[in-house]
Amino acid sequence: MRYGNEEQLHQWLVPLLEGNIRSGFAMTEPQVASSDATNIECSIKRQGDSYIINGRKWWTSGAMDPRCKILIVMGKTNFDAPKHKQQSMILVDINTPGVNIKRPLTVFGFDDAPHGHAEISFENVRVPAKNILLGEGCGFEIAQGRLGPGRLHHCMRLIGAAERGMQMMVLRALSRKAFDKFIAEHGSFLSDVAKCRIELEKTRLLVLEAADQLDQLGNKKARGTIAMAKVAAPNMALKVLDMAMQVHGAAGLSGDTVLAHLWATARTLRIADGPDEVHLGTIAKLELRRARL
Amino acid sequence: MRYGNEEQLHQWLVPLLEGNIRSGFAMTEPQVASSDATNIECSIKRQGDSYIINGRKWWTSGAMDPRCKILIVMGKTNFDAPKHKQQSMILVDINTPGVNIKRPLTVFGFDDAPHGHAEISFENVRVPAKNILLGEGCGFEIAQGRLGPGRLHHCMRLIGAAERGMQMMVLRALSRKAFDKFIAEHGSFLSDVAKCRIELEKTRLLVLEAADQLDQLGNKKARGTIAMAKVAAPNMALKVLDMAMQVHGAAGLSGDTVLAHLWATARTLRIADGPDEVHLGTIAKLELRRARL
Amino acid sequence: MRYGNEEQLHQWLVPLLEGNIRSGFAMTEPQVASSDATNIECSIKRQGDSYIINGRKWWTSGAMDPRCKILIVMGKTNFDAPKHKQQSMILVDINTPGVNIKRPLTVFGFDDAPHGHAEISFENVRVPAKNILLGEGCGFEIAQGRLGPGRLHHCMRLIGAAERGMQMMVLRALSRKAFDKFIAEHGSFLSDVAKCRIELEKTRLLVLEAADQLDQLGNKKARGTIAMAKVAAPNMALKVLDMAMQVHGAAGLSGDTVLAHLWATARTLRIADGPDEVHLGTIAKLELRRARL
Amino acid sequence: MRYGNEEQLHQWLVPLLEGNIRSGFAMTEPQVASSDATNIECSIKRQGDSYIINGRKWWTSGAMDPRCKILIVMGKTNFDAPKHKQQSMILVDINTPGVNIKRPLTVFGFDDAPHGHAEISFENVRVPAKNILLGEGCGFEIAQGRLGPGRLHHCMRLIGAAERGMQMMVLRALSRKAFDKFIAEHGSFLSDVAKCRIELEKTRLLVLEAADQLDQLGNKKARGTIAMAKVAAPNMALKVLDMAMQVHGAAGLSGDTVLAHLWATARTLRIADGPDEVHLGTIAKLELRRARL
Repeated sequence: MRYGNEEQLHQWLVPLLEGNIRSGFAMTEPQVASSDATNIECSIKRQGDSYIINGRKWWTSGAMDPRCKILIVMGKTNFDAPKHKQQSMILVDINTPGVNIKRPLTVFGFDDAPHGHAEISFENVRVPAKNILLGEGCGFEIAQGRLGPGRLHHCMRLIGAAERGMQMMVLRALSRKAFDKFIAEHGSFLSDVAKCRIELEKTRLLVLEAADQLDQLGNKKARGTIAMAKVAAPNMALKVLDMAMQVHGAAGLSGDTVLAHLWATARTLRIADGPDEVHLGTIAKLELRRARL
Repeated sequence: MRYGNEEQLHQWLVPLLEGNIRSGFAMTEPQVASSDATNIECSIKRQGDSYIINGRKWWTSGAMDPRCKILIVMGKTNFDAPKHKQQSMILVDINTPGVNIKRPLTVFGFDDAPHGHAEISFENVRVPAKNILLGEGCGFEIAQGRLGPGRLHHCMRLIGAAERGMQMMVLRALSRKAFDKFIAEHGSFLSDVAKCRIELEKTRLLVLEAADQLDQLGNKKARGTIAMAKVAAPNMALKVLDMAMQVHGAAGLSGDTVLAHLWATARTLRIADGPDEVHLGTIAKLELRRARL
Repeated sequence: MRYGNEEQLHQWLVPLLEGNIRSGFAMTEPQVASSDATNIECSIKRQGDSYIINGRKWWTSGAMDPRCKILIVMGKTNFDAPKHKQQSMILVDINTPGVNIKRPLTVFGFDDAPHGHAEISFENVRVPAKNILLGEGCGFEIAQGRLGPGRLHHCMRLIGAAERGMQMMVLRALSRKAFDKFIAEHGSFLSDVAKCRIELEKTRLLVLEAADQLDQLGNKKARGTIAMAKVAAPNMALKVLDMAMQVHGAAGLSGDTVLAHLWATARTLRIADGPDEVHLGTIAKLELRRARL
Repeated sequence: MRYGNEEQLHQWLVPLLEGNIRSGFAMTEPQVASSDATNIECSIKRQGDSYIINGRKWWTSGAMDPRCKILIVMGKTNFDAPKHKQQSMILVDINTPGVNIKRPLTVFGFDDAPHGHAEISFENVRVPAKNILLGEGCGFEIAQGRLGPGRLHHCMRLIGAAERGMQMMVLRALSRKAFDKFIAEHGSFLSDVAKCRIELEKTRLLVLEAADQLDQLGNKKARGTIAMAKVAAPNMALKVLDMAMQVHGAAGLSGDTVLAHLWATARTLRIADGPDEVHLGTIAKLELRRARL
């Protein structure tokens, strides 16, 4: 919340850091392709000392948690401004009248309780004007600034999830027999586990490279490599975890191992924080630009 | 239940066909790789006019349903017989003492209630000797006879699931805009949807061919083509449904569309009724045999 | 040459069918993306009782052969006509002044002598007006009519090439040892050979289906399935032949087996008679049209 | 040639470094799977002050070149020694009686003249005993020591080849129109070019990591990562170059661009210096060992 002011920091950031409350980020909307942030329809209208918020959001992760007290809502303060200046972010106390947590959403059957992913409607929700983050029209800029590190953070967790999948599949293969041999003795298992390891190492190095570029060169210059990592990491993790599930047989798909849940989470990350298609577009654009020089 | 006798038919088949009761098939065991049926450890021991059953089964689909009254249990009547003569199938009234429905299993996060997939323990379960199907040592033979048609039945449902995925993704792409164009106008969508259609048509034809061979040549001679269909169909359906989910964005992974559940079901069919690896082995064996002629 | 008239038939078709002469088809041009036939730049201009041809063609297969006597040239008789009425086909005696066979082209390193693929320039080549096929502006229509069957013919040869690759790889694997086992005993070989067989069978069925639709429904209604076969067949053959080469080690890439040449030929068929991208576009268009009904 | 002695160095290494002569390395044999070096059948027998060499080799790259004067031959000095102590390397003047350069081999039709890949027979070739490298039974050890760096060297060239392919495909796509748009404006091109870039960057980082491990940890500890790079680099380059060829249309397969030759060379590197299968085995073995700790 480096974009917040003194007062906002005191009121919300301190209790957040102390672990007393939780927050939720309300950006995605059910009615539009939110991969394109210019599609957002939620309105945030100035009225005297307040803003009035109207809109419908979903996939606000964490908002089902009883400890969730504060929402960061992305909406439009000015529908007529230039395309990337229409959006603003604003803090909304979850108990403000008009905020309706409508239901939890599931991901492949998982409800991820108590955390959860909420659909929320905002009906004439009035919040103090000082709750705006950074200023009107800065929503897109804040999002851009946060998304790079946020995406890398997802990538890192995916590397960990894949590493866990590798470990589990190898241990299973060393302890389980089919057709008179341990799975680890079957030639096609060995070939597949090696391919998984290659994918994992390549992707780990790409994530490290992206993190290094973010540190050294900043968000903007690192965006190509971050986009590559954001595409590569979930796709790699899905492949590794899928093989780990297969080696576990039916147990791998059930709640008896962590694999199916890890897989489902990895699958969301081909969509959340920009679907593959958007990142591929970014990478291609940079490739063409370089060739034109 | 063409393997049952007159009495078995009257007692169980008639109410099943009338829809008054349901059945469950208890073959897979948690402790062993059940893809290799010779691994089965459940014991069915003759004792006077009864059999005593001891073992632990899971993924007995349908057994959570209150209407489920009868189980077909696969176990070993003779651990010393030749490898494929040790197994027998026996009818077990679900209310017999010693039958414990322990818990429902989930597939990804889905519990598939009320149907459900049960883990069941059998502790000194005593059933009349006449409940044996076909005869002692015939378990493997019965399984072989039923698995061909059973697998094809799965394949057919997968073709249907994939077709539904195709339809949903195209309709979504025609109605949803991102970056100022309908998804259906994006070049990579068109290329991917065409690849899905090719995969679907190829697989549909393979399933039809397998069905025709089953009718014309019988289970044994059709087994290679059935194995091919059993590998091809779920893998194709997973690919098509995955793309359909991606086109739907987060909605595609949630309970708001049928896609995630169809995907999860298709994923089980790379394991159930023989994992891909076993069928690939069958196909390879026939390929080598043909070359040796 | 069902599009030719009596005189054309007598002069050229009879010696062709008797095997005394060969023909070449000159359509593709080096300067433009010929996958889009509307790009063609070769001009065929009426001048009294003659046509004057100017242009540059390449990939005229067969034109290097000393027995090649007649060329079918596709060019534009009217650059101002509607897009698909500009093109005409005309017969050109290869010995006409102004026809220069400039050089043979190679495919990978293969020159395919004596057959060969020629680059040809046409400089003020004058041919009798009666040499036009069907009539001015009918070039696109003739091409459309011939391409369906022509593409299927390629697909059929690809099925044969893949089948030969399967056979060769299995025989090699049964006769060659590495690390104390025959290649055919390595688990990953078995898994891969089975996957190749599945791909081959699916594609064979698709090609048969396309041929049946062509017979039953005609070129236009079968075009979707023909497009699918035209994409599926070379991609499948490339995969199978690539594995066959790998199993043969370095021999598989050399001239000591037929594999590398079969592979190179299959690779041309992802481009010749319409690149994959064009056929995928056709398939996608039909898919969207069906959904809109 | 750090394994050579003073005299060997003076006689051969100096002229080699001065560029006056060339060398060839004769290891692979047509009759056996040379991916498993223990299969080698060429014999090197001690006889007084000489060794007598008998055997048949192929893929001795460079041996067709008229400047090639010296061969390093790998054979067995003792067929009864432990498996990895049977092999020795020996220097053979190419003009020694009994050395027959039988023919050049082609790779996808390319003969790579004047360099070339030779098949060579050795019939009772007598060379001085001092020509042995390092000592009898050291052949396997020398090979092991050289293969790590040699493989990485191939990987680096493959990265360069892929980078060139990227450049060429992008420039082509920016300058060529099909269906009224530049190829670079087609959505599926953009998506594919981005995927190629991701693969290229991941693989480049893996090759750099392997080189760093080789420097820091030495050949033996780096062998897992080198094996990964040796599998990843050619497969990545083949994918990128294949797409580059496709974007170039028929020109991409011909001798008019460098792409087909780059592709063919990359394809050999899935076999030369250990086929993919062998390296995957190494990687899997290390993975299992790590899990067992």
